[in-house]
Amino acid sequence: MAELCIVLVEPKHQCNVGFVARAMKNFGFQRLYFSGKAFTPGSEAYACAAHARDVLAGAAHLGSRPLSQLFDLVVGSTSKHKTRESSPRNAVSPRELATLLSGVEGRVALVFGREDRGLSDSELDACDLVLSIPASEGYPTLNLSHAVAIVLYELALSNAPGLAGVRKASGREKEALLQRLGQLLESLGYPNYKKKVVERIFKRVIGRAVISGREAHTLAGIFKEAKDEIERRRQR
Amino acid sequence: MAELCIVLVEPKHQCNVGFVARAMKNFGFQRLYFSGKAFTPGSEAYACAAHARDVLAGAAHLGSRPLSQLFDLVVGSTSKHKTRESSPRNAVSPRELATLLSGVEGRVALVFGREDRGLSDSELDACDLVLSIPASEGYPTLNLSHAVAIVLYELALSNAPGLAGVRKASGREKEALLQRLGQLLESLGYPNYKKKVVERIFKRVIGRAVISGREAHTLAGIFKEAKDEIERRRQR
Repeated sequence: MAELCIVLVEPKHQCNVGFVARAMKNFGFQRLYFSGKAFTPGSEAYACAAHARDVLAGAAHLGSRPLSQLFDLVVGSTSKHKTRESSPRNAVSPRELATLLSGVEGRVALVFGREDRGLSDSELDACDLVLSIPASEGYPTLNLSHAVAIVLYELALSNAPGLAGVRKASGREKEALLQRLGQLLESLGYPNYKKKVVERIFKRVIGRAVISGREAHTLAGIFKEAKDEIERRRQR
Repeated sequence: MAELCIVLVEPKHQCNVGFVARAMKNFGFQRLYFSGKAFTPGSEAYACAAHARDVLAGAAHLGSRPLSQLFDLVVGSTSKHKTRESSPRNAVSPRELATLLSGVEGRVALVFGREDRGLSDSELDACDLVLSIPASEGYPTLNLSHAVAIVLYELALSNAPGLAGVRKASGREKEALLQRLGQLLESLGYPNYKKKVVERIFKRVIGRAVISGREAHTLAGIFKEAKDEIERRRQR
């Protein structure tokens, strides 16, 4: 089973962070991290955490390394999801995520953004997968801790082991696969903006598929061979 | 469809009530009531309600008549559920409730108790149904507003199409995509057995990702361009 971690990017309100810790403990999750500017839980956070003081006390700040190097699967969340596939905000629902994660091993980061403006497009772009809670169009932005609670509720519900046994691609393997695709697109003369769109679409496809190490390796191999072939012929 | 109302019995914390109003609006619910001792939302409640001030402003206090006379179905909630059928705390889950309510007409009250001690056995006895959120045994008591948010999330989901909207790739489109891959592999000189293995792997990846029409089109385009490029150079 995956080791699930909550990553809060630059939270502002002490009580929100306390409530996140409480919701985590309510659903049996323990690992809380902060990213970006430093955050130190104070007495208000501890009061709101109630009996989840241990979760809060164990929270750590992540350094400046990209999340993809620290976790095997990085899931970013947004309240502003888009249905267009080329959008960095093209998202799955918490229930879909629960299904996707059921077969995953390794460290999974669920990343939640700032209370006022969430995660940026480029922060979401860096994630393997984007998550959004279906909510009312009139007011789709949930409070941070309520969003965390709903997602963890879904994940706790679907604790089924799923199709285990297959080793999922690591963050590094997926990175390498995307690089191979990028090199192929370059050899095909794709302009940069178009290359970016295709890379984003492909990243979401392999993210939703939660591809295995072998699958990543196979696809990267095809991309590399095609690129090599094109370049070899070009040099003649 | 049922008209769903939230009834808070003697809430204490202003911000909790504000967060309840926000969660209600997030999931498209509007009717909030207080029961028992009087509660007046103050500035803190309004601050926590954020853009759901209207829900808070429209909240009313129920008189002393029993809830069963005011609503067609009364659902009480508890974090201390019991599996024994004869217990007043024998409960359904939010997901079961969503299914149960899907065929219900009339006014439904979802009743949530005090922050510190919830609803009493006799209050739960007066309900038609008892609801409990499955949570960790180590700490099963959710904050009031988080419990409301999770229940409303479930009820809203069972009424809504979710994040769909993206047209999924048809069988024909996926077939065409696999053909394009096969042609690329041929141009790369893959022996047939190896081509079959790669095609099967790729088929599973796009199957698990449940790719959209646009995604299939984009990937097929890359495969075709790479194959054309390889063949063009070969003919020179």
